[in-house]
Amino acid sequence: MKLNGQKRRSVLLKDKSIEIFDQRVLPLEIKPVTLKTLEEAATAIREMWVRGAPLIGATAAYGLSFALGKDASDAALTKAYDTLLATRPTAINLKWALDEMMQAVKGLKPEQREAAAYTRAAAICDEEVGINDAIGKNGLAVFKDILAKKKDKSVLNILTHCNAGWLACVDWGTALAPIYMAHDEGIKVHVWVDETRPRNQGALTSFELTQHGVPNTVIVDNAGGLLMQQGKVDVVIVGTDRTLANGDVCNKIGTYLKALAAKDNNVPFYVALPYTTIDWSTKDASHIEIENRSENEILELGGQPIYPAGTKALNPAFDITPARLITGLITEQGVCKASLEGLRNLYKKAA
Amino acid sequence: MKLNGQKRRSVLLKDKSIEIFDQRVLPLEIKPVTLKTLEEAATAIREMWVRGAPLIGATAAYGLSFALGKDASDAALTKAYDTLLATRPTAINLKWALDEMMQAVKGLKPEQREAAAYTRAAAICDEEVGINDAIGKNGLAVFKDILAKKKDKSVLNILTHCNAGWLACVDWGTALAPIYMAHDEGIKVHVWVDETRPRNQGALTSFELTQHGVPNTVIVDNAGGLLMQQGKVDVVIVGTDRTLANGDVCNKIGTYLKALAAKDNNVPFYVALPYTTIDWSTKDASHIEIENRSENEILELGGQPIYPAGTKALNPAFDITPARLITGLITEQGVCKASLEGLRNLYKKAA
Repeated sequence: MKLNGQKRRSVLLKDKSIEIFDQRVLPLEIKPVTLKTLEEAATAIREMWVRGAPLIGATAAYGLSFALGKDASDAALTKAYDTLLATRPTAINLKWALDEMMQAVKGLKPEQREAAAYTRAAAICDEEVGINDAIGKNGLAVFKDILAKKKDKSVLNILTHCNAGWLACVDWGTALAPIYMAHDEGIKVHVWVDETRPRNQGALTSFELTQHGVPNTVIVDNAGGLLMQQGKVDVVIVGTDRTLANGDVCNKIGTYLKALAAKDNNVPFYVALPYTTIDWSTKDASHIEIENRSENEILELGGQPIYPAGTKALNPAFDITPARLITGLITEQGVCKASLEGLRNLYKKAA
Repeated sequence: MKLNGQKRRSVLLKDKSIEIFDQRVLPLEIKPVTLKTLEEAATAIREMWVRGAPLIGATAAYGLSFALGKDASDAALTKAYDTLLATRPTAINLKWALDEMMQAVKGLKPEQREAAAYTRAAAICDEEVGINDAIGKNGLAVFKDILAKKKDKSVLNILTHCNAGWLACVDWGTALAPIYMAHDEGIKVHVWVDETRPRNQGALTSFELTQHGVPNTVIVDNAGGLLMQQGKVDVVIVGTDRTLANGDVCNKIGTYLKALAAKDNNVPFYVALPYTTIDWSTKDASHIEIENRSENEILELGGQPIYPAGTKALNPAFDITPARLITGLITEQGVCKASLEGLRNLYKKAA
């Protein structure tokens, strides 16, 4: 990632503290914040100074390290684990990262734990970056193929939904990684950024892209279909919150509508994902429970009501894009068809 | 329409003035405003106290009547016509209504003009209401058919986009007319209201429906696809800004995405329209110029920027829903297939 022209990560270790950005004030303000205690790390996760599953996991890993620097007893370790786990109970990476940390330190003597914790936290961050780097390279090859088939090769127009960039990760991002790499290679890319109501994560995506120098244009979620009708979109790429074994993708609400429009206009539709989002056990999307968030995300703007009192709203956060609408899945292992067979081949899984 | 439990129209003649509602403060505030001069009528149209093509036309018709009450000379008539026409140069009903008024008064002696103007203005309003009434009845029959085929007949779930209700018309509306009539007949209806970014006309639709006692739930524009996947939408009905002779429909941006989702989930998709929106001469949607509105409608909320300075946005206002995605067109003449043949049969037009 680049910020004010400098290469850096979303989580930066500085001695025994980390620097993150308060994402509550982004993109209008870039506010670096230093976290150096368990409590500060827990607050940053709970109050969404940091967001995005991988970034939450990384912040929690360092939060546990901070705790062990103060008190490395079994009791303190358990308390730190519980405190951090309670911050965002549904984020899957949070528990994964904390379990990894626990595994790395619990068998050690207290005086060895702090150093081991920092080592494992750093490794978690590096693994995360490595995965996103591989997704980026695999996605870049896809982009090059699409550009090669275009008549007008002067620019590759990419549409994305929500934020699957470095602000949700430690570096690169998933869906945005191949875009950054294409730009860095000198390929002219332009990104249509869905604003992504109701939480407007498109503002984060636009901010990221602009910081990296990638030309981008924000559109309302309603507009992507028209742009595809007009031939102004060469490829759609999005992230995913959960990828089913059959290739169906559960992602931010509205993804399905863009996939339908892509299919209707012969625009390739790709999903970028790390292996950690694959749900090998759920075989049917109808078994997925869709989270309904607060109706105030729709009925209020900046804390002020925009509807009369008593207005009802429903705010589902995800939808299901059926595998039949997906051109391919881009993972750290390569690119495959959105199907059980495709995923099994890529991950060498037996039937 | 009903407001605070009372039946009334969006434009109400009171002696030689009209009462409208300042739609700039709706739906948070119901603010009746009396207009009694040409200048007041022109301001109300220009500054969007009134909006919606039929309502703009009706307001302009009375504006011309007010002017003739003050000065019925040829010069004053021409000046009033020009002043009103300049308020919203692209609204098609505005010119139509002003031409109708001009036709009704220009051949008369000045002392006869004022009375003739009020008569014609009232007739324009009545014709408008009659058309919407007929659309409502024809749409109601469609709804009854759909409900009859449903297993669970306890409620009819309808999804609509933008505002095609009485706030855009003199009474009833187009897409909302059959909903009001179904409700008035005792059929249990529930409406999913797309918020319709960037201008949030869904707030007006929700307001209208609630005032009439129709249960409704606001959703983001991203959510309709999921609701259809979940079987929570029985029918989609929308209005149209322009209906092509081949049955393609140019309507508020995002309509196309809902039509795709409806098709993918076997949900009937209807468009309600008065004959005045049919464009018999344009046979190919590619010839339609799509209006791009100000990017500030996307980049600002309540006048405050929500993106860093320099962020680019594109704000197209309409998209094209191809006839192949439309189950039927509901007009004042009846219901037909979205095709040249369907429209010709309905309007007895020769090939």
